[in-house]
Amino acid sequence: MINKEIPYKIYLEESEMPKYWLNLRAFMDKKPAPLLDSQTLKPITLEKLSEVFCEELARQELDDTTKYIEIPEEIRNFYKMYRPAPLVRAYCLEKALDTPAKIYYKFEGNNTSGSHKLNSAIAQAYYAKQQGLKGVTTETGAGQWGTALSMACSYFNLDCKVFMVKCSYEQKPFRREVMRTYGADVTPSPSMTTEIGKKINEEFPGTTGSLGCAISEAVEAATSREGYRYVLGSVLNQVLLHQSVIGLETKTALDKYGVKADIIIGCAGGGSNLGGLIAPFMVEKMQGVRDYKIIAVEPSSCPTLTRGVYAYDYCDTGKVCPLAKMYTLGSGYIPAASHAGGLRYHGMTSTLSELKDQGLMEATSVKQTEVFEAAQKFARVEGILPAPESAHAIKVAVDEALKCKQTGEEKTIVFGLTGTGYFDMMSYQKFNDGIMKDYIPTDDEIKVAIDKLPKI
Amino acid sequence: MINKEIPYKIYLEESEMPKYWLNLRAFMDKKPAPLLDSQTLKPITLEKLSEVFCEELARQELDDTTKYIEIPEEIRNFYKMYRPAPLVRAYCLEKALDTPAKIYYKFEGNNTSGSHKLNSAIAQAYYAKQQGLKGVTTETGAGQWGTALSMACSYFNLDCKVFMVKCSYEQKPFRREVMRTYGADVTPSPSMTTEIGKKINEEFPGTTGSLGCAISEAVEAATSREGYRYVLGSVLNQVLLHQSVIGLETKTALDKYGVKADIIIGCAGGGSNLGGLIAPFMVEKMQGVRDYKIIAVEPSSCPTLTRGVYAYDYCDTGKVCPLAKMYTLGSGYIPAASHAGGLRYHGMTSTLSELKDQGLMEATSVKQTEVFEAAQKFARVEGILPAPESAHAIKVAVDEALKCKQTGEEKTIVFGLTGTGYFDMMSYQKFNDGIMKDYIPTDDEIKVAIDKLPKI
Repeated sequence: MINKEIPYKIYLEESEMPKYWLNLRAFMDKKPAPLLDSQTLKPITLEKLSEVFCEELARQELDDTTKYIEIPEEIRNFYKMYRPAPLVRAYCLEKALDTPAKIYYKFEGNNTSGSHKLNSAIAQAYYAKQQGLKGVTTETGAGQWGTALSMACSYFNLDCKVFMVKCSYEQKPFRREVMRTYGADVTPSPSMTTEIGKKINEEFPGTTGSLGCAISEAVEAATSREGYRYVLGSVLNQVLLHQSVIGLETKTALDKYGVKADIIIGCAGGGSNLGGLIAPFMVEKMQGVRDYKIIAVEPSSCPTLTRGVYAYDYCDTGKVCPLAKMYTLGSGYIPAASHAGGLRYHGMTSTLSELKDQGLMEATSVKQTEVFEAAQKFARVEGILPAPESAHAIKVAVDEALKCKQTGEEKTIVFGLTGTGYFDMMSYQKFNDGIMKDYIPTDDEIKVAIDKLPKI
Repeated sequence: MINKEIPYKIYLEESEMPKYWLNLRAFMDKKPAPLLDSQTLKPITLEKLSEVFCEELARQELDDTTKYIEIPEEIRNFYKMYRPAPLVRAYCLEKALDTPAKIYYKFEGNNTSGSHKLNSAIAQAYYAKQQGLKGVTTETGAGQWGTALSMACSYFNLDCKVFMVKCSYEQKPFRREVMRTYGADVTPSPSMTTEIGKKINEEFPGTTGSLGCAISEAVEAATSREGYRYVLGSVLNQVLLHQSVIGLETKTALDKYGVKADIIIGCAGGGSNLGGLIAPFMVEKMQGVRDYKIIAVEPSSCPTLTRGVYAYDYCDTGKVCPLAKMYTLGSGYIPAASHAGGLRYHGMTSTLSELKDQGLMEATSVKQTEVFEAAQKFARVEGILPAPESAHAIKVAVDEALKCKQTGEEKTIVFGLTGTGYFDMMSYQKFNDGIMKDYIPTDDEIKVAIDKLPKI
């Protein structure tokens, strides 16, 4: 199939869709450090992890040896409802940039959750159902993960309790209503339905909540009632595993047309979409088959990989979850309000952190006004209005393509377009009105939370 | 390819996409009655029509003899950015209904405009650009058409002036911001930028506007300045022509798998999506090749085809556009506020009106609460949250599938899923909160505006 004319959008056949997830850690010579029990500070056991997570998911969380894990048929059938996601050749963007680079993007936004989150949500709901659970609990900030989980739970007829950060609950009523339409029980956090919620409401009357608090409420709601477990949409190893469908489909589509990528770019918040996108390419890189330049893009307001330290830290501000060794700004770091809520996380999934530490992956940070400029340009020439998170990858892909214009190199650039911005129009409005601001923390601001890292 | 296993989603290859639009009127023995000049009440001339519309579009508007019209290459390239739209086999819905019927839907929502409107917007922008115009003007209610036109104009670097009904402008800021992101100039109507707008603002201070007023402002804005023309997103013959890509793709996809449709269903406001969807099937029906049952679905609050009369009427409340012979409730009929803004039109495109009159098409009306029930069920099992307009077709498709369950017939049902409901969450909220109401006008209410029809 080499040199066949490349269509605007490459859709795989159903028969070409992945039947196995790729477990990137299993291919690494030096593995990411193990999760630690927050009470004993020793590597966490399957038993302990299964108190919070579904058993099969806890098993996947700890498995760093099985290279490929079969995707259960029911999940594959659900994937067929909204996948394969297209790999798009950005002909119009190339033309607008007048670059010799070839640009491709894997578009994960063509489903009602509006992002790649559904890939893991359906897997997590499936294993919860298999275990005979009544339901799951989770937290959501902007609402992408909560929406995806609501859809997945509705499909398997599972109860879904979502703790939504109160300010988002009030400011983003549309996402809330999508969740409700899918039958989820959406509670503004901090609520009066949990002990921790009551305590926070008492201590800070009128607080509009935080993701850390919502996590604590969701964990309590899961562990304090029969037949419930807690689920999470990023950061975890299991989530990277499920998200490998992104990279596997991308690789199959490129191979089908004999295209070799040179640069692979993705935005990174907790790291799940990037970890999924790069999985099969990173395997080739580690095996010496091909040398890809792999770039993680983060917001300058939350520069985990570019300005954080590589150390053990708590995954949540409430310190109820296990500790992970990762690039972190400190679990007490509160990123400035930004329009890419999905990238406001103090840490980074341990696999990507280790790959960065080994020099197998680069990282860069970008300012939100330049991100929205790139988003608008992209929307106008490629016809898709991107999520602010995804637009971080667009910005760096455009920069790389412009470098090619200067050097005349015909590099092939692949980036992840994780979602659409239809529920982010208030952010676009700020950009359209010219009142959006950038924020870059000072070294001192970053030092404060890092100084408080646990000494392990 | 007969009896090949049918995937969840059928995506055509780019090479299989239509190269010609199908002009349904050219296949009709008895043609729809001609448009009449609103001043002379005689059939309108190309010259007169070209004062308001682009010349090539005016030509298409009057052409009822050319059966196939070539789609210019630039438009076909734009189509490739978001088409082919998938024809989806609704396996999950069939299972949930436990019906022997086979259900398919043509999904037109996978683009940033969120609906099929883009198919005609890009064609209209193209011809405006070809004519060397500076820009186009239009009106928009809920904003789907305005969004589509903004995207199309941005692509061709045309100025785009959108008059948005003031209450929508204020209540639907997200759609407004999508248009602005694409560079459109969005003005709340009635505005102080046109004579008619000033007059209405003077007569009715504080008015929140109407579609009729916005049309009048858009027409004035186009005709009163050099290098501008007015464009419209439905009702017109040219729009049905462009929308025939929906039906042509659907037919090709079905043929590819040897599937024969029995029932074809679409929602009908102005009639453009339904006219496009049924085009190639109606040709076969008229030629005696196959007898399809074709159903137009309208809201009970605006029952044009089911309770209107077939007569010449004004297309707009301002009476500035030509008159068309169509099923109508009278141009003075003001439909009750409904959550399917795209279906709140007093008339129906003349082609569909004539087909209904000839008995080649059926029509039915449904209540909005039952429409939202169907929408929610569909969202939960098929994973796509539909636009309220599209959900009218879902409701009737489900009804037909349940009839098959009773009779045991394995009928093949195809319906048009014209768009997504991501910008309609306030309507879903009303439904989720259980406070949505139905409205069915009394015979007397309908009689009032019909009695005022022009005597022609």
